[in-house]
Amino acid sequence: MAVYTEVTDDALAAFLERYEIGRVVAFRGIAEGVENSNYSLRTTEGDFILTLYEKRVDPVELPWFLGLMEHLAAQSLPCPLPVRAQDGANLNPLAGRIAAITTFLPGIWPRRPTAAHCGPLGAALARLHEAGTGYAAERANALGPHGWRPLLDRCGESADRVQPGWGVELAAALDRILAAWPEDLPRGQIHADLFPDNVFFLDGAISGLIDFYFAATDYFAYDIAVCLNAWCFEADLTFNITKSRALLRGYQSIRPLAATETAALPVLCQGAAIRFLLTRLYDWINTPDGALVTRKDPMPYYRRLRFHAQTRSASDYGL
Amino acid sequence: MAVYTEVTDDALAAFLERYEIGRVVAFRGIAEGVENSNYSLRTTEGDFILTLYEKRVDPVELPWFLGLMEHLAAQSLPCPLPVRAQDGANLNPLAGRIAAITTFLPGIWPRRPTAAHCGPLGAALARLHEAGTGYAAERANALGPHGWRPLLDRCGESADRVQPGWGVELAAALDRILAAWPEDLPRGQIHADLFPDNVFFLDGAISGLIDFYFAATDYFAYDIAVCLNAWCFEADLTFNITKSRALLRGYQSIRPLAATETAALPVLCQGAAIRFLLTRLYDWINTPDGALVTRKDPMPYYRRLRFHAQTRSASDYGL
Repeated sequence: MAVYTEVTDDALAAFLERYEIGRVVAFRGIAEGVENSNYSLRTTEGDFILTLYEKRVDPVELPWFLGLMEHLAAQSLPCPLPVRAQDGANLNPLAGRIAAITTFLPGIWPRRPTAAHCGPLGAALARLHEAGTGYAAERANALGPHGWRPLLDRCGESADRVQPGWGVELAAALDRILAAWPEDLPRGQIHADLFPDNVFFLDGAISGLIDFYFAATDYFAYDIAVCLNAWCFEADLTFNITKSRALLRGYQSIRPLAATETAALPVLCQGAAIRFLLTRLYDWINTPDGALVTRKDPMPYYRRLRFHAQTRSASDYGL
Repeated sequence: MAVYTEVTDDALAAFLERYEIGRVVAFRGIAEGVENSNYSLRTTEGDFILTLYEKRVDPVELPWFLGLMEHLAAQSLPCPLPVRAQDGANLNPLAGRIAAITTFLPGIWPRRPTAAHCGPLGAALARLHEAGTGYAAERANALGPHGWRPLLDRCGESADRVQPGWGVELAAALDRILAAWPEDLPRGQIHADLFPDNVFFLDGAISGLIDFYFAATDYFAYDIAVCLNAWCFEADLTFNITKSRALLRGYQSIRPLAATETAALPVLCQGAAIRFLLTRLYDWINTPDGALVTRKDPMPYYRRLRFHAQTRSASDYGL
């Protein structure tokens, strides 16, 4: 799924001449990551990941993402460190794309997250939020609350073709969410997409946080809400409060939540659910039938949205 | 493209307990290989490839393939060595599939093969043929000449829907090829699918031959014909005799061809071309429109077939 751009040996060799990381020993496409092309690159000096940025990523935004990763890595967060070429550039052209080399992180992402994963995850998320405070440049969250209405509008009448009644129902849900959206919560750099496949574990501890290409400047507690959606529902889409409690406790062991943040959890979780519902719905409608990408079903996020719509307070999340 | 079966952390850990290769350090899906699911597996003891055999591979045939790889590796051929579990088994169940661990081979497969690749390739192919002689068990080549007529018959009238006239034309071509098919050429274990993505190079030398799951017992020179088709045509489908000459010279530097083999090259090359034409045609017809696999266009092999149909002797291949 994740090699859209082929790199010839000659092009790779020429690209690597810009860097001081030795000669190529192995180079294999990685079947993970949906947005970009990723290769596992081994050189005589170590292991790296080579990423070619595909069309969904705006090249203008790349320096912000790579700057954030560099900043977080410098704060000892286990995230990929962009490798700079001899001239200092961490972004260089390759095979008609912009490409970057980052350090390799050990670990495995959990295919079946358990409560034992959720505590370390929460703590790592809080560390990420704290580590990001010194990174001054801001990036508006294009997929935050201001982006949801335009996204639903662009789905238009097709929403009802995916699921009868969704057009009206999602518009009403969005009205309620945006009307209740909190103001002035603590904010900073958030990951905004910290799903299990972006978190590596080794011997029970977190060894890597990857894929910062949805990162933005937004409410910290919204990032928690994304994780509650991504980590705390079972395969049958029931909510697991044990996982949620572990995640929130792990988070607060590093960064205690303000009362305004805990109070906002139900609506933030609804917002996070509708964000993934809407992007999946949009992709579902706009992916041609024969396309070589996996369309993700929006329905599981509708089910999550319905769960969050009936929660009353942070206690429903185990706090 | 190449992760069809997901492996949970728990299942992987339980599977690895059968082996003595240390603890997992990293585990990533590889976006290469069309038939099976492949993972890059790093443990505290080294690097390995984990393969889960998908539906196209008959489990009954796996011991033959793995036995061949073990035999070839013991002859110092740079092919993956299946790792045996503590009980001696090199095939074990994982995630509802049969799986094997093999050693990791360094190198990069050439995205744009040049004549400089073709000499070492030819020599490696000859070494493979010689190394296989001590492996006594035979495997009939299901995709050899006896398999082509049934394959075309199963395409039936759909061939004409892919390309008008193909039904009659391919049947006639197949008649000619089978009528001229040589008897009693030197035979043994052949790779039968040695395309560029199955051959790793490092510093100009071959560092790995992989993917033996089409290997069979058949004419050595037919294996050469497969390589001439796979390596010696340009992107515009013109034949490059410089590459062909390099490949044949490389081969003969290890194993000189008999006169019967060189005389048969034109028809063997036609056979190899129609073999890939027919499997691609069959897959083209039988792949549902929305399927998540890349359908390979049969047309380039029709073009190759037409080239080979007008060659007269081995001199047309640079000998």
